[in-house]
Amino acid sequence: MALRVRLVLDVFRSETEFVRWLRKQVPGKARGLRLGIGDDAAVVEVEPHRGVVLKSDMCIENVHFNRGHHPPFSVGHRSLTRPLSDLAAIGAVPRFALVSLALSRSTPPVWIEEFYAGLLALAMRFGVTLVGGDVARMHAPTVIDVIVTGEVELGTELRRSGAKPGDRIFVSGELGLAALGLRLLRLQRHVNTRHRRTPGRGDPSLVSALRAQLYPEPRCKLGRLLSTGNLASATIDLSDGLSTDLHHLCEASGVGARVSEELLPVPLTSEYPRRTRLSLALHGGEDYQLLFTVPSGKEIPASLGDVPLRCIGEIRRSKQILLIRNDGRQSALPPGGYDHFRHLA
Amino acid sequence: MALRVRLVLDVFRSETEFVRWLRKQVPGKARGLRLGIGDDAAVVEVEPHRGVVLKSDMCIENVHFNRGHHPPFSVGHRSLTRPLSDLAAIGAVPRFALVSLALSRSTPPVWIEEFYAGLLALAMRFGVTLVGGDVARMHAPTVIDVIVTGEVELGTELRRSGAKPGDRIFVSGELGLAALGLRLLRLQRHVNTRHRRTPGRGDPSLVSALRAQLYPEPRCKLGRLLSTGNLASATIDLSDGLSTDLHHLCEASGVGARVSEELLPVPLTSEYPRRTRLSLALHGGEDYQLLFTVPSGKEIPASLGDVPLRCIGEIRRSKQILLIRNDGRQSALPPGGYDHFRHLA
Repeated sequence: MALRVRLVLDVFRSETEFVRWLRKQVPGKARGLRLGIGDDAAVVEVEPHRGVVLKSDMCIENVHFNRGHHPPFSVGHRSLTRPLSDLAAIGAVPRFALVSLALSRSTPPVWIEEFYAGLLALAMRFGVTLVGGDVARMHAPTVIDVIVTGEVELGTELRRSGAKPGDRIFVSGELGLAALGLRLLRLQRHVNTRHRRTPGRGDPSLVSALRAQLYPEPRCKLGRLLSTGNLASATIDLSDGLSTDLHHLCEASGVGARVSEELLPVPLTSEYPRRTRLSLALHGGEDYQLLFTVPSGKEIPASLGDVPLRCIGEIRRSKQILLIRNDGRQSALPPGGYDHFRHLA
Repeated sequence: MALRVRLVLDVFRSETEFVRWLRKQVPGKARGLRLGIGDDAAVVEVEPHRGVVLKSDMCIENVHFNRGHHPPFSVGHRSLTRPLSDLAAIGAVPRFALVSLALSRSTPPVWIEEFYAGLLALAMRFGVTLVGGDVARMHAPTVIDVIVTGEVELGTELRRSGAKPGDRIFVSGELGLAALGLRLLRLQRHVNTRHRRTPGRGDPSLVSALRAQLYPEPRCKLGRLLSTGNLASATIDLSDGLSTDLHHLCEASGVGARVSEELLPVPLTSEYPRRTRLSLALHGGEDYQLLFTVPSGKEIPASLGDVPLRCIGEIRRSKQILLIRNDGRQSALPPGGYDHFRHLA
């Protein structure tokens, strides 16, 4: 182990050594890769009659992750999950990735190594090849920008803008789990330093909340099935929280929506009151599930691509976004997710 | 003007408003664009038989730019120049861009507006369409990551690795101009606060140094001519400085090089001693000129794509990188550019 750390330190002594190390972490001969890490840019081949899908997504220290809560392997996983989830919403097959890394000067080499290990483990599972990027160091928190390209048959790409009045609204998986996981991580850290007891141990629902926060699963397979099966009229990935992302989809489609509290897949655990869990399901972000709308007459199975699906409401002509409470009352559902511009100076 | 600023402030009050504003800045109907800003990801078409070129490049406040020296219009221009220059070195035609922007909380809205104006003005000149990206705010210096995609006929892409012993080494334009420009900007700021005199005013060479620093011109046209004319055996763009980038090219090609001091296109100005100007030409970065090697027997004109070209030395079998001084003495030329990993904790 000591030897390994020494080797890693050696590798991170110059940019040239770093690029050489990174090249060794990545499988050399990926399908369609013509020119990869270490040249001025990457060159890749695209299958005929397919469009290229492009997405970049940032992961910022103390905004999207926190070194006290997220081990570097998880940060690598989550950084790639963000753009992969967007490709899932398009119905694209992911192919290549670039990583731009502005590293805090205090980052130890082993953190960088574990970060790439986490990112590349997920990349391998999803058939994504890392082909390049950029790296720099600075006196500030770490900023990671992951760019993913994918392919989609032109004309079959899913988008936010196709929802029509009368369409049913579906979500995959459970909502609010990742936000619940973040609460547990904060509590865990607090408890660890005081009582040395880990919350959530033994409760399978809390374990899955931790997993949803640290290792979210992008829904690429589900997105492909929706796109190739021509099942969805509009899609969006749930990164900012249901209330915010539903607003985005409705705005792009020029429609409104009504969702029912009783239909929402709220996390099941007796450790938190229903009111808290409902709030997490509505406004907690980072679930990376898909929200999609389905025209009337199309059948949606109970699960697709091994992910359970749930109808939570319907699209309406009126542009309001409404929530029907369990007691039957209706109220407006304002976007409650994080907005980077809200507190602009 | 007051009205304009009020409008801008309004626009930057939420992410939705920001995206709406950004969409208005970008021409709507670009060739090959299927799905652009505001959806989960962009979808673009690729011409048949062409490869996709991918590059991301970061521009970090207080590392690559400084608000005291670089107006926001220049920061936008420079952020896009960095990846465009890499595409020039591949010989690719640039097509689409993504911008990931992690903004310092203290950034005023007018800075963001001017940044995009500078970036989009250069994008328009080079036929590049902005198709998406990401935006966030943080308590730290601004980090900009610009991703450019391009196209190249598969098999004609230029790379770092093709240089052979006996090949002549060429550079475009002047070297060290951008570094000289940075010196002038620093001096200017110093002088402005003390003597209210602007250095470089009237001296055309110093004016072009300021232009090289603030508004560098990516050599995309030259790169295309080298690639389509099959003229170069290897290329690299000069972003880190001649000494560093020549090392990169030689390492990728498994060769060495010998360059002559007297052949270097050093900035011409009587305000700085030759020794200083030579050092800037060898080690000063950010020139965004192309360095390329040419097999013996191939003719290279005095200029290509309106850029003067200069032979500065030759590739050799021995892996050393040598500089022949004007007095005939030979010495090793170590990489003298900035290395983000050199001072790793």
